[in-house]
Amino acid sequence: MAKDIYHNQVKSALESEGWTITADPYYLKMQAIEYEVDLGAEKIIAASKDNHKIAIEIKSFLVQSPTYEMHKAIGQFQTYAFALRKQEPERILYLAVPIRIYEDFFVLPFIKELISFYNIKLIVFDPDNKKIVKWIN
Amino acid sequence: MAKDIYHNQVKSALESEGWTITADPYYLKMQAIEYEVDLGAEKIIAASKDNHKIAIEIKSFLVQSPTYEMHKAIGQFQTYAFALRKQEPERILYLAVPIRIYEDFFVLPFIKELISFYNIKLIVFDPDNKKIVKWIN
Repeated sequence: MAKDIYHNQVKSALESEGWTITADPYYLKMQAIEYEVDLGAEKIIAASKDNHKIAIEIKSFLVQSPTYEMHKAIGQFQTYAFALRKQEPERILYLAVPIRIYEDFFVLPFIKELISFYNIKLIVFDPDNKKIVKWIN
Repeated sequence: MAKDIYHNQVKSALESEGWTITADPYYLKMQAIEYEVDLGAEKIIAASKDNHKIAIEIKSFLVQSPTYEMHKAIGQFQTYAFALRKQEPERILYLAVPIRIYEDFFVLPFIKELISFYNIKLIVFDPDNKKIVKWIN
């Protein structure tokens, strides 16, 4: 489905930078919440390289308006980051977004400030070339 | 439409507690972002009472899974709170949720901690009786 379209591209892009995919999907335990449904649609993956451990929420921004998708992405990111902090605090969560939406939307001053204010870390990827374009911490 | 279903009930509930609705919808300026589309569907309202000024994002939680709706609600709340901080920092943003979803979902320990961690203030309302049940700051 559309939501999953970039899943494999992001995995390949990470692997080509020397990361090892350690879980796909990576499960977050959130007591009493049925997360499988949502995670089934938009899986988090986990990767590691040297001493670094990361989790990645991949967003296609293909389905609805960027604003609408961004709301959902921020809400998911905050929820996952909160769960991750309890489960495996040394693992850092990233939001992976395609270069197209990054250049059209995430560079807007308001969005840039918003993302930075809430400490949302980005991986910008190029799905066509299966490459990571940049990491924004 | 479904999303707007509780709009008038929340307004009435606030008025019955002595609040004056000062803007409906209340517009948030977010440079270069087309927010009208989203705000058209889920409007923010503004109210005041004595020296207190609030803005309210009303969520029905009628459409999709509570988890999915919560992600969107958190993402919107954070985005609106960020915009409000610049525009009118003295106005406090609340998320208004119906009592049914509050009792079924927001009382779950994980959700309770999550909402508190991200400082999301709640107004719990009873749509049938057009009453505010509680304020959670």
